[in-house]
Amino acid sequence: MDNKPELIIDRKKVSRNIDRMLAKARHSHAVFRPHFKTHQSAEIGKIFRKKGVGKITVSSVSMAQYFIGHGWNDITIAFPANLLEMEEINRLAVKVQLNLLVDSAYSTSVLAKSLQNKAGVFIKIDTGYHRSGLLPNDPEIESIIRVLSDSGTLSFKGFLTHAGHTYSAGGKANILSIMEDARQKLNRLKAKYLQHFPEIITSYGDTPSCSLADDCNGFDEIRPGNFVYYDVMQYHIGSCRLDDIAVAVICPVVSVYPGRKELVIYGGAVHLSKEFIEADNNFRLFGYVVELTENGWGEPIPGAYVSSLSQEHGIVKMPKEFIRKYKPGDVVGILPVHSCLTVNLLKLKTNHGDL
Amino acid sequence: MDNKPELIIDRKKVSRNIDRMLAKARHSHAVFRPHFKTHQSAEIGKIFRKKGVGKITVSSVSMAQYFIGHGWNDITIAFPANLLEMEEINRLAVKVQLNLLVDSAYSTSVLAKSLQNKAGVFIKIDTGYHRSGLLPNDPEIESIIRVLSDSGTLSFKGFLTHAGHTYSAGGKANILSIMEDARQKLNRLKAKYLQHFPEIITSYGDTPSCSLADDCNGFDEIRPGNFVYYDVMQYHIGSCRLDDIAVAVICPVVSVYPGRKELVIYGGAVHLSKEFIEADNNFRLFGYVVELTENGWGEPIPGAYVSSLSQEHGIVKMPKEFIRKYKPGDVVGILPVHSCLTVNLLKLKTNHGDL
Repeated sequence: MDNKPELIIDRKKVSRNIDRMLAKARHSHAVFRPHFKTHQSAEIGKIFRKKGVGKITVSSVSMAQYFIGHGWNDITIAFPANLLEMEEINRLAVKVQLNLLVDSAYSTSVLAKSLQNKAGVFIKIDTGYHRSGLLPNDPEIESIIRVLSDSGTLSFKGFLTHAGHTYSAGGKANILSIMEDARQKLNRLKAKYLQHFPEIITSYGDTPSCSLADDCNGFDEIRPGNFVYYDVMQYHIGSCRLDDIAVAVICPVVSVYPGRKELVIYGGAVHLSKEFIEADNNFRLFGYVVELTENGWGEPIPGAYVSSLSQEHGIVKMPKEFIRKYKPGDVVGILPVHSCLTVNLLKLKTNHGDL
Repeated sequence: MDNKPELIIDRKKVSRNIDRMLAKARHSHAVFRPHFKTHQSAEIGKIFRKKGVGKITVSSVSMAQYFIGHGWNDITIAFPANLLEMEEINRLAVKVQLNLLVDSAYSTSVLAKSLQNKAGVFIKIDTGYHRSGLLPNDPEIESIIRVLSDSGTLSFKGFLTHAGHTYSAGGKANILSIMEDARQKLNRLKAKYLQHFPEIITSYGDTPSCSLADDCNGFDEIRPGNFVYYDVMQYHIGSCRLDDIAVAVICPVVSVYPGRKELVIYGGAVHLSKEFIEADNNFRLFGYVVELTENGWGEPIPGAYVSSLSQEHGIVKMPKEFIRKYKPGDVVGILPVHSCLTVNLLKLKTNHGDL
């Protein structure tokens, strides 16, 4: 049946990955609000729900709509509020507990004016990633809080950060130090405003630090997402073992070049995404190669990797002793570099046999 | 209406880009078989058809199915035949003139055995790109032709190459020299077998060389695809002018950071793809930024570009004098680095007002 590039999931690994992170959140007395952008799947959502998870994070209004359609009713859209989707936000806010993100008094004022239904608002703090958010000492924070105080519909929920700079930190010690820095910054802000807003919390995300830390003490909420599947990038960062990677792409082999020690697979940028890991000497890796087994897949084939991608083609480099086993019409499994992007391209069919 | 990342097309530019390439093909007495993987759109296909184009190229069986469903009946699948889709290929071959690609006697034999309906077969030649195909002197070519000669269903159509190494060639002279090299290699092969197979042709593709060459003389068929939209990468290669780029993505501005001289847009890797152009000092460019106008968009804003992408976020660097004009709730246009991948992510809605 698997005659085109297709996503396969190892349910046992998914379950184990969720259990581990959920236990860590509980042990740390933190609310577990996993980010669902990684899987974007109602079916995977059900696994979380069975384990008692009721609050989720998404990264767009569209994704919120999708999961509300599948029964989720407490959702944080962890993306700066898109003022052009006010109508949609209004429709969602009437149905569920919706939390939005802001990082300017301007956006907050527009929300306060245009939103007819109650919503929670987090202030996005930039703890060093420099993607979105305000630096902890930015006076704009004060201005936002003034707007929130005056609003009848918006309630101030607290301070939220995504420490995305853990991805390039290089090593566990650096990652944990980024986490500690974020913890201090968020808690200082919380302490400053707690008296006036006794309900505010600190909310922290990112898979590398939440995976590597022994606990998430000191955060009121954690929002990792990628951990549900992990991927080759997380393995390189040190966030997971190879055996924790819970997603692979089945790819047909269409050409075999023993002389070049390369295979061409049906599996390109439109299936895996162009995300890669690089090293010196122009080395780029777009995925590991695994043999498929009856129940999933094995260890990566030593020395084999996806070395380049065009739209539909993938080139796999493979040592001579392994390449001899392959001919056109066979299939290989590819462990993706960045599961979020691969999964976005090859969304799980809800009627997938595995689910 | 444009409240989420959305693809917009400039129909006049599309029409002009097609006219130019079509004229070059006619002038060169080459069959024009444009690659439809760039647009993957029945609506854009109609523009080609109105101009008299009847033969097309696609890069997967799925894409062939889609275009056959929209009335196309002479299709080359320019991708090594995927033996796992034999059933689908069989169903298509009975309906239309279908051409397949092979680069091994093994795949050719499997096709000869399993295909019940007539199909054309091109031998894929590697003229230097080293993605798929056989080197011109590979004895495997002879073996494939033997299998084709003995087959009642497969007819030998000729030699086909994609000179994808033009993309990194660096300059017009190098690109044209790659084209000349391919012309010689394909024509030598054709000459060698023409007596026994008087119908065989040479088929050549790739937008950089077909755009930069004054003519495509010496090829029986050309298959460029990207030229219909072009993109920032083609502009950097020199294949087109900025004004030829016929596709942009409308992206909402969600955060403005005058101090950082950066905007955050709703428009990330899941909209634009992670394709980039790089230069020294870790400079990476994921798209140009344009202002939207009533009829399309203007010139790129000087000094502004998309400097990084995560799943849904794009970071735009923009000089101070321009960034002052923006606030959350505005929109900007992004010219994509690689239109094929962006368009794959944001497929044109067939009911789009522009079409």
